[in-house]
Amino acid sequence: MDPIAQKLIDFTLTARPGAEARAVMQLSLYDWLACGLAGRPEPLARITREQALAEGGAELAMMLGGGRVPARAAALVNGATSHALDYDDTHFAHIGHPSVAVIPAVLAVGSDDVVGDALIGAEASVAVGMWLGRGPYKVGFHPTAIAGAIGATLGAARARGLTAEQTGHALGIAATKAAGLISTFGTMAKPLNAGLAAECGVVATDLAARGFIANPGSLAGPNGLWATHHGDGDAGALNTLGADWRMVDVSHKLHACCHGLHAMLEALSGTEGTPEAVQVTTHSRWMPVCNIAEPATGLQAKFSYRHTAAMALSGMDTGDIGSFTDACANDPRLMALRRRVAVITDDTLSEMQARVVVDGKALFHDLAAPMPLSLRTEKLRRKGRALLGDLEPEAWNVTARPQVTADALQPLMGV
Amino acid sequence: MDPIAQKLIDFTLTARPGAEARAVMQLSLYDWLACGLAGRPEPLARITREQALAEGGAELAMMLGGGRVPARAAALVNGATSHALDYDDTHFAHIGHPSVAVIPAVLAVGSDDVVGDALIGAEASVAVGMWLGRGPYKVGFHPTAIAGAIGATLGAARARGLTAEQTGHALGIAATKAAGLISTFGTMAKPLNAGLAAECGVVATDLAARGFIANPGSLAGPNGLWATHHGDGDAGALNTLGADWRMVDVSHKLHACCHGLHAMLEALSGTEGTPEAVQVTTHSRWMPVCNIAEPATGLQAKFSYRHTAAMALSGMDTGDIGSFTDACANDPRLMALRRRVAVITDDTLSEMQARVVVDGKALFHDLAAPMPLSLRTEKLRRKGRALLGDLEPEAWNVTARPQVTADALQPLMGV
Repeated sequence: MDPIAQKLIDFTLTARPGAEARAVMQLSLYDWLACGLAGRPEPLARITREQALAEGGAELAMMLGGGRVPARAAALVNGATSHALDYDDTHFAHIGHPSVAVIPAVLAVGSDDVVGDALIGAEASVAVGMWLGRGPYKVGFHPTAIAGAIGATLGAARARGLTAEQTGHALGIAATKAAGLISTFGTMAKPLNAGLAAECGVVATDLAARGFIANPGSLAGPNGLWATHHGDGDAGALNTLGADWRMVDVSHKLHACCHGLHAMLEALSGTEGTPEAVQVTTHSRWMPVCNIAEPATGLQAKFSYRHTAAMALSGMDTGDIGSFTDACANDPRLMALRRRVAVITDDTLSEMQARVVVDGKALFHDLAAPMPLSLRTEKLRRKGRALLGDLEPEAWNVTARPQVTADALQPLMGV
Repeated sequence: MDPIAQKLIDFTLTARPGAEARAVMQLSLYDWLACGLAGRPEPLARITREQALAEGGAELAMMLGGGRVPARAAALVNGATSHALDYDDTHFAHIGHPSVAVIPAVLAVGSDDVVGDALIGAEASVAVGMWLGRGPYKVGFHPTAIAGAIGATLGAARARGLTAEQTGHALGIAATKAAGLISTFGTMAKPLNAGLAAECGVVATDLAARGFIANPGSLAGPNGLWATHHGDGDAGALNTLGADWRMVDVSHKLHACCHGLHAMLEALSGTEGTPEAVQVTTHSRWMPVCNIAEPATGLQAKFSYRHTAAMALSGMDTGDIGSFTDACANDPRLMALRRRVAVITDDTLSEMQARVVVDGKALFHDLAAPMPLSLRTEKLRRKGRALLGDLEPEAWNVTARPQVTADALQPLMGV
């Protein structure tokens, strides 16, 4: 047996998540629901929903935005919809978005413990992403799609109570079906990749439950995922599965823009005014990603250190997706302010750190720094209120239950 | 625009297949139907059919074996079912199986000209496979799944009459969704890969027709299919698209065993008896593939030069899937005969050639040698009769029409 598959199967069947990991995953579920409900009006969400409704079939699982469809279809639509705004959680250890791949799969198969099952899947997806390493990403594979498909499969396998043997076959199916390219970024196909990963979890576990035979050695074995997908990571990434819960370190976006801007925005938190000079120092990795000096549209503003700094200094709510309009990008006051912002790099900082100097006053933030659960909750609920408005209390109440079932979540997803 | 995508789009929208290419594709359609109907009882065919029926939905397209389901689901089931016996056509220019990926997609979307639309898709899949080259295969990607998904998408795009712009977006979706590993070989997931390719064609074109925006540059562009899938072929492979029809050279299996054995079996054709010594000379590529010296099961016999030579010399019908039983592998007479067969290699032969010396008499066959259409038809109908029995005349009559519609084929698929 492929040792990687064996570790993942053992973990899926036997892991007992600790309270802290469960509490963070519970926040991720709340955050996922807020992002998913806010994503409903996006064109790609509408298109995938229409496709699922046109296909029809057994009305087993709820789509974000309404309509019950087969589990496979719901997983696809909900994965794509919840990633539509690119506002969902990120795990920097493999630069992937765990919740949008895993939660829709677990919900679609009707989990009785969404938090526990999604946590198994998310934890596995992060570990698989670390096992594959940066190689797949560098060449153009989308970790959310690839590692996410494996995580979605294991989360769904746990939710459905597959045997070890069935889980192995499901892994084999997932390995051959997992797909997604970075060339999709900036198009509707990027969030589609998250939907494909979630769908993969449903299809792979359903086929395995029906007796389908695949090759459980399709991850690390010959002609398997490691070989094909330019794996260059560390097999040791799976050694602590079940003991050391990496989802505790998941990063929740608190600003409706590129994650590379968040450390700066957190550093600026509480600082408002019209300074003469602002200097932002960040890791060079972010320069080609989110350093548009003179953004002309709301979308470009989401990838601009200078403009988002000006927004924060002006007291705008960068947690509100409605803040990033074309008018905002072309607001003369913000344009004047952003010209006072200089951006430089320093690779002694981590990719999650930023230093900001505002008229001589030094500020610093590290997204990796531990945040007390109560503060994280407070910040996420503020984000949730900006995204959900009147729906927020119900979203909180449903996801904060000790044990969240798919059945309990579905009415709220369907609003 | 990605020049590879541009060539594929131009080809899909404007190509006018010649009569010879259409005639060969028509034989491929007949052959596909025979393999697909014969594959119905296979466990993986039953499992995927059950999954599709459990999901239900709009009863738009017929599955091999019966039951109307949504187009996407029918494409998946029919692709997997028609590849279940591994008896469908092969194009050696990219070692892929064009028909099982393309025909199910074209049928599922309700083509009015199955032969023409499938020919566009098959031709494109061979060209894309040659463009990618041997790199993807060597590392573990399954060309039928990857190039096949692109071909299925273009065949379906032509059948649905997508615009150039929509076809570009469909290509972008197909590039991010195409998947399939060689680690599946020997399991039910190998034929599943053909089904996934066919399904990809339906999903990609349906999303594109609904206004989905993807990146048409996801084949040759940055972070696209070429980069991720270890492309090492030749961009010139697409230069003659629409002028030089490669599907004319498609190879139809006439024996129900590994394609590496076929040149030998054709060389032995008409030679029966109990010779003292048989020497088979073949390309070394086939040694790890199909040179099991002492097969113990019917499946192993399908990968044995010595045993299939003995079968042919004994006058057994190697075109009949029913010939390859465990009893056949353990038949003392055949076992005695196979011990007189020696297998040696000579890499001045092509992978499609074999030399056989039977008691001093030299025989030779080249699978790549042109075969008159009438002879190919005769051989395929013999295969069809072995696979289909009483259904064969109707299968021939339906596929031999000047213009074959999906509607006309569906009743026969559903028997």
